[in-house]
Amino acid sequence: MGSVWRFLVGRPLRAREVAKEQITPVEGLPVLSLDALTSVAYGPEAIIGILALAGAGALSLLLPITGAIVALLAILVFSYRQVIDAYPGGGGTYAVCRANFGRTVRLLAAAALVVDYTLTVAVSIAAGVGALVSAFPGLRPATVPLCLGFLAVITVLNLRGLGDTARAFLLPTMVFIVGMLAIIGIGLVHPLAVGSPQPGRPLLVEHGIETVSVLLVLRAFSAGCSALTGVEAIANGVPMFRQPRVVRAKRTELLLGAILGTMLLGLAILAARWHVGPRTGQTVLSQIIAISVGRDWAYYVMSLTITLVLALAANTSFGGLPVLASLVARDNYLPHLFSLRDDRQVYGFGIWALAVLSGALLLAVGGNTLALIPLFAIGVFTGFTLSQAGLVRHWVRSRPPRWRHRAIINGFGAVVTAVCTVVFLVTKFTAGAWVVVLAVPALMYTFVRIHRYYEHAGRALGLGVVPGKLPARNTLVVVPVAGVSRLTERAIAQALSISHDVVAVHVVVESTDNVEEDRDLQARWARWDPGVPLRIVHTEFASIAGPVVGLVDELRGRQDRQVMVLIPVVRPDHRYADFLHDHRDRVLTKALRARPDVIVATVPMSLHLDDSP
Amino acid sequence: MGSVWRFLVGRPLRAREVAKEQITPVEGLPVLSLDALTSVAYGPEAIIGILALAGAGALSLLLPITGAIVALLAILVFSYRQVIDAYPGGGGTYAVCRANFGRTVRLLAAAALVVDYTLTVAVSIAAGVGALVSAFPGLRPATVPLCLGFLAVITVLNLRGLGDTARAFLLPTMVFIVGMLAIIGIGLVHPLAVGSPQPGRPLLVEHGIETVSVLLVLRAFSAGCSALTGVEAIANGVPMFRQPRVVRAKRTELLLGAILGTMLLGLAILAARWHVGPRTGQTVLSQIIAISVGRDWAYYVMSLTITLVLALAANTSFGGLPVLASLVARDNYLPHLFSLRDDRQVYGFGIWALAVLSGALLLAVGGNTLALIPLFAIGVFTGFTLSQAGLVRHWVRSRPPRWRHRAIINGFGAVVTAVCTVVFLVTKFTAGAWVVVLAVPALMYTFVRIHRYYEHAGRALGLGVVPGKLPARNTLVVVPVAGVSRLTERAIAQALSISHDVVAVHVVVESTDNVEEDRDLQARWARWDPGVPLRIVHTEFASIAGPVVGLVDELRGRQDRQVMVLIPVVRPDHRYADFLHDHRDRVLTKALRARPDVIVATVPMSLHLDDSP
Repeated sequence: MGSVWRFLVGRPLRAREVAKEQITPVEGLPVLSLDALTSVAYGPEAIIGILALAGAGALSLLLPITGAIVALLAILVFSYRQVIDAYPGGGGTYAVCRANFGRTVRLLAAAALVVDYTLTVAVSIAAGVGALVSAFPGLRPATVPLCLGFLAVITVLNLRGLGDTARAFLLPTMVFIVGMLAIIGIGLVHPLAVGSPQPGRPLLVEHGIETVSVLLVLRAFSAGCSALTGVEAIANGVPMFRQPRVVRAKRTELLLGAILGTMLLGLAILAARWHVGPRTGQTVLSQIIAISVGRDWAYYVMSLTITLVLALAANTSFGGLPVLASLVARDNYLPHLFSLRDDRQVYGFGIWALAVLSGALLLAVGGNTLALIPLFAIGVFTGFTLSQAGLVRHWVRSRPPRWRHRAIINGFGAVVTAVCTVVFLVTKFTAGAWVVVLAVPALMYTFVRIHRYYEHAGRALGLGVVPGKLPARNTLVVVPVAGVSRLTERAIAQALSISHDVVAVHVVVESTDNVEEDRDLQARWARWDPGVPLRIVHTEFASIAGPVVGLVDELRGRQDRQVMVLIPVVRPDHRYADFLHDHRDRVLTKALRARPDVIVATVPMSLHLDDSP
Repeated sequence: MGSVWRFLVGRPLRAREVAKEQITPVEGLPVLSLDALTSVAYGPEAIIGILALAGAGALSLLLPITGAIVALLAILVFSYRQVIDAYPGGGGTYAVCRANFGRTVRLLAAAALVVDYTLTVAVSIAAGVGALVSAFPGLRPATVPLCLGFLAVITVLNLRGLGDTARAFLLPTMVFIVGMLAIIGIGLVHPLAVGSPQPGRPLLVEHGIETVSVLLVLRAFSAGCSALTGVEAIANGVPMFRQPRVVRAKRTELLLGAILGTMLLGLAILAARWHVGPRTGQTVLSQIIAISVGRDWAYYVMSLTITLVLALAANTSFGGLPVLASLVARDNYLPHLFSLRDDRQVYGFGIWALAVLSGALLLAVGGNTLALIPLFAIGVFTGFTLSQAGLVRHWVRSRPPRWRHRAIINGFGAVVTAVCTVVFLVTKFTAGAWVVVLAVPALMYTFVRIHRYYEHAGRALGLGVVPGKLPARNTLVVVPVAGVSRLTERAIAQALSISHDVVAVHVVVESTDNVEEDRDLQARWARWDPGVPLRIVHTEFASIAGPVVGLVDELRGRQDRQVMVLIPVVRPDHRYADFLHDHRDRVLTKALRARPDVIVATVPMSLHLDDSP
């Protein structure tokens, strides 16, 4: 097991072996923007899914709604370019809130981000597998195993530490971008493109089950806003860029906005023109590709590429959550385990936590993207709102040149995203958003409790207090022995190296009817004569732990001295042989936990057997 | 959890609190003979199940076959009365074989008994639940959960230690015996008894799918021999009887034989007269009771009683296997854990092992008795054969008065049961007996490997060797510290009480970018001045374990001295707070396992928090 694991994650790494990323804007797209770019795979789908409820006529609203979303995208892109200016050290929303707000807002940001990151992983993987089973319907029954399989691969890759391999994402990202733009271009030039009119046209009733209302439009708009998730990632990762960092990062943000906006609008035009509706077993994007280029090799190449980039998009969260959790843990709001790097220099605990949470989520919804999207945008947009609002405060406080201008852009972004957040909460509350409404405060409460524990523990441990002078005490060593053997010899020898005050103790369990036992042992002890007294204690109970603890208490009571219990332990070569030794040492160790001022030590003796079983 | 468990199994007991059973012959029936008596619930059923394959006509063979089985019962009863004479100390087949045969036969006996005991539990419980669902067909879908529920109750009762409560079995046993005899009596007096002619007569084809052959008769006979299981239990438990033990035990054996023989013959006569055949959803015994007394209150009382006594019969194995395993473990053929009594003075490990094995078996066959019976009798009859053969050897060696007479009885028993064993193996091989044929040698091989391990380990540990004089060595204590705190203070104080040669070590993990860390700590250490040098070690790896082990190796290399690592550990009040502490102590302890000559000790510090989370 251990060596298989080592093979998967690789040998331990030195800190300096982990190269700092030094990326260009074009490389910034695969490393930091896949999450945003790939949301075209589920954003338009979500809008159409809602509009279709009001019948085929309502689909004409697709284009204006997409237009509004792209406008919001533009605001966010300009806002985050300002975040990059203000926080060139990266760190994202949590850093902005930490610098500009009090504890509650900071924890709200942390909780929203945790929810967001977890949902991003689940949505990306579910959407990737959705694209795959659209292309290969035979795989549909394996949806959940496929999701978990992708998750496992991404988790292991991240436990290895991605290092420069993230740059290997460049090729599929470029294929994806170029391919998507080509598909949109072909679709716009040919009226019905190369594909035949769809044989199985989606089932769109002329008059739907809902009427076109303001609420419906709002719901469709907010569903489509899931396409904007991931726009913030570049601002989090500024330190990864090559110098001049700020310029390059801002350029990447602009590039992302332009590509994403083009894709969203193009797809909306095509979907409206071809009356593409929701259909079981095939995503909207898959239908558009099929009409545009036909169900030919190009269709399959794009389907596989989309699967791949969606799954890789989940990776963005694996880059984000462990770092966020380590920052929160250093502020004492999460267990310190989150702030420890493991031997591959990654925050292993955070990676595992994210994998377990998102895996549970994928299982809970059966790998269905639509079930997750209602939950998705709330965390993201809360983060958007908080970081914009934090920046407004930052500009007002620091007043750099043109601060009014900057504050207005971020303030406008904050208001728009805040309105969106409220719309999501209201329109999607019964569709699952209540889960987020419960989860975020629950997380915040947990953060606060953890922080309180660490405060108390810090006081109890006297952190920051210089202790007084140390009293000198003697040590008495108690060695429980089972008989006279090489094991006993070692233990007594080591006890004598610690103190001249050593007592060996043997417990006779009377129920085993070994009446000869103590006389035998006493005789052999006398013959050996190790210079240490042997105390024989009788017990009517079956456990040897009670009498040893009793003797320790008795010996300790006499003088002010340190008592140490030295337990001899046989340690066999093979794990399975463990089963063949009675584990009285463990029983004793556990019983002695009740005496925290007694030092408990084990004296191991390896057992090398010629041909053990 | 701990307190719930304590409530279930009770407080720890002293050895003398566990009263020795002092039972009379009448009490011997419930305590030692339920297994045998209750086999009337599945023995006749098994015969009829086989005969029915050859059509309704073949059922006329039921009576002669039952006659032959009762004759074999008589032989076994007389044989075991002689076992009681020869081994009044109890111990049963394993004791007989241990005294009279070499290792292979002894291990064969042990393996056969382990298989037998496990199957007895599974068959008894499955049969008990079978009786229950015959009476209440609505419970049928819950068969497996009911089986596991009964098993859990019996397991917990045995982990408590049954003590005198076994005598509480007296009432249901008496109801069972008296009730069964009454049912047989009523059935024999009234031609069709009080019940109406069965509305749903069993589906017995006139000409079955098999012809009546010698093989079929042998198969039916051997299937019915499952009714003889448990006849040996009284001989195992002779020490439980009140003095004069041998007389009382022999009387109980005779009583058992008489009652069991009467029941078997009576049931066979009734089944033949009423043409009772196998029927889905109702056992043969249940059908006979229904015809004899009608589906009235008496039917339900008997059904529930049979359920209860069958489930209690499983208890016979719980009395047997743990004791057997403890004997085998003391001979070093099973892990020594089997020979340790737990705090209720029972062999807890054996009880758990039996519960897990028989639970797995019940799950595997879905609580179906018939699936288990083919496996059942082989182990039992191997045990019968071996103990009879061992007794023949015993008589021939010791030559007491009338030894020829005794040897002939046991010899005849051995031959008959050996023939039966072979018949079982041959006729039931494909029906599942091959499992036993594989399991028994596999168990024997395991016994031998375990024994070889203990031999090697005993030599390696120098058991039985008086060690030489002990060299005097100095001890160096290494204390890994994370900073200056009350925890560090305690650990250093305790280290100084052990040796004047103490080194504190602090590891700076460079990847955490705490460049100030070491200068800070050095300054605070100087201000504290505990009289112990502080070594600061830098590492580029993420783990602190490597550098500490490296320092230990370096310090150890210099002189011949004992090295001890004293690890300070915070021990919070609450289990869940464990999660909030990084467990560097565990990482260190694990890493230091690779240095078996280094003593590793933890210095715990309890953390009492006013209002911890």
